Amino acid sequence: MSGEETCGRLKQLFSDDPFSRKLGIELVELRPGYAKAAMRLGPDHLNFNGFIHGGAIFTLMDQAFAAASNSHNESSVAVSMSVQFVNAPRPAGALYAEAKEVEKSRKLGLYELEVRDEEGKLICRSDGRVYRIGKPIVE
Amino acid sequence: MSGEETCGRLKQLFSDDPFSRKLGIELVELRPGYAKAAMRLGPDHLNFNGFIHGGAIFTLMDQAFAAASNSHNESSVAVSMSVQFVNAPRPAGALYAEAKEVEKSRKLGLYELEVRDEEGKLICRSDGRVYRIGKPIVE
Amino acid sequence: MSGEETCGRLKQLFSDDPFSRKLGIELVELRPGYAKAAMRLGPDHLNFNGFIHGGAIFTLMDQAFAAASNSHNESSVAVSMSVQFVNAPRPAGALYAEAKEVEKSRKLGLYELEVRDEEGKLICRSDGRVYRIGKPIVE
Amino acid sequence: MSGEETCGRLKQLFSDDPFSRKLGIELVELRPGYAKAAMRLGPDHLNFNGFIHGGAIFTLMDQAFAAASNSHNESSVAVSMSVQFVNAPRPAGALYAEAKEVEKSRKLGLYELEVRDEEGKLICRSDGRVYRIGKPIVE
Repeated sequence: MSGEETCGRLKQLFSDDPFSRKLGIELVELRPGYAKAAMRLGPDHLNFNGFIHGGAIFTLMDQAFAAASNSHNESSVAVSMSVQFVNAPRPAGALYAEAKEVEKSRKLGLYELEVRDEEGKLICRSDGRVYRIGKPIVE
Repeated sequence: MSGEETCGRLKQLFSDDPFSRKLGIELVELRPGYAKAAMRLGPDHLNFNGFIHGGAIFTLMDQAFAAASNSHNESSVAVSMSVQFVNAPRPAGALYAEAKEVEKSRKLGLYELEVRDEEGKLICRSDGRVYRIGKPIVE
Repeated sequence: MSGEETCGRLKQLFSDDPFSRKLGIELVELRPGYAKAAMRLGPDHLNFNGFIHGGAIFTLMDQAFAAASNSHNESSVAVSMSVQFVNAPRPAGALYAEAKEVEKSRKLGLYELEVRDEEGKLICRSDGRVYRIGKPIVE
Repeated sequence: MSGEETCGRLKQLFSDDPFSRKLGIELVELRPGYAKAAMRLGPDHLNFNGFIHGGAIFTLMDQAFAAASNSHNESSVAVSMSVQFVNAPRPAGALYAEAKEVEKSRKLGLYELEVRDEEGKLICRSDGRVYRIGKPIVE
């Protein structure tokens, strides 16, 4: 199976995710070491205060992180994340998360994660660490 | 209004949260500097891999964090969180998050956050920082 | 070699550390999964502002972390740390760091780290993650 | 006093730092929102294992962070840092830390911090948060 075929099958698999589907998250791009996800905002994403819930923002970021860190078809699990909430997004439109590989060794990986709104304003930022179990995800 | 009345009204307000309700999260305890939240797990909380999604675990933790850090009736916003995923929970039963105040100054606050399963096994751990805007939440 | 002998030899080894010696750090206690270190403060530990330098506080904490995470005689390396600076210490007397094992699996470990002053006031707090290479440190 | 004069006086002040001088750290560049620091490595920077001590790497990074976050002549204190140790540096030559402002509001600031070796290999990475007290540092 070619690298492109593998990435296509992984993208399909990562999209078949009950929790992120429930939140309206879509995986819009996947290539080795990189992923981008989008979430259309609605009244369901609000917290008690009328702002977008931190958990919704985190989940979008985590979805891009999981996709990028498993994009090499080597099973990886998140172990540590830092989360910096920078700006509160407007409760409308969409948010976008990007995950970029900073470092990959045999057993560990580090990813830079950012969430931005439609105008490109930074909403949230994180460094995410994975431990690589290393088993292939799709054959 | 007494401290107890204030806490009761805050608890009601924090429970009226569209996003955490959508996820089945319930605020089970609130007192000054402390909160506990619960989430009953179902097929909606799963990720592509059949595990509970990191975003669901984080949201439960964040809900307890928001409640505890706003429990003094001084409006606070999360600025930084560390997240340590320790054990993957079984995809059944319930999870519990506790938030405990470690430090509170006029403008900042630090909270220790833990998510455990029904047997008390540690699932996730965090230190959460807030910046206190300080306006009263309920009059 | 008994567990006690191993711990004694590790404590001697960890104490023979040029950088921490230069800073006046002493490893005062070591047992499996736990370490305590102390640092006597002097004018050398100050930053441009007359406060104890964050790097001195971190190094004390890191020294306890390294000792606790290597206390099982399985070589471990720090991969991620969160750092929360809570109170600025008085620039006199001593600081103490404790590292406690929260979780230990075959390849990973999580440690709770705290620095306190002589009155027990919390100065700094961290969650530290290690990856276990697993080779014995002393034979 | 012009912005350039202010930056020059701040650079001089930040360089007059007993702890970072003891470690051989030099502030090589300072402009509003940006700082770069260097540390020449020697036998004093080693840990018990013959590697550069994590505390030395952190201190270099923290020095650039403090300079960048105070570069607007508004007093700022570090509250939270994430630390990701990526590659162990060779115990020779020099290390360089850069701090770049990601976000600045009236009371908070976020900085991206990286330590690299002479070949540009990434050694350590962090997101650093400050709380702005806001008093001028030099008149």
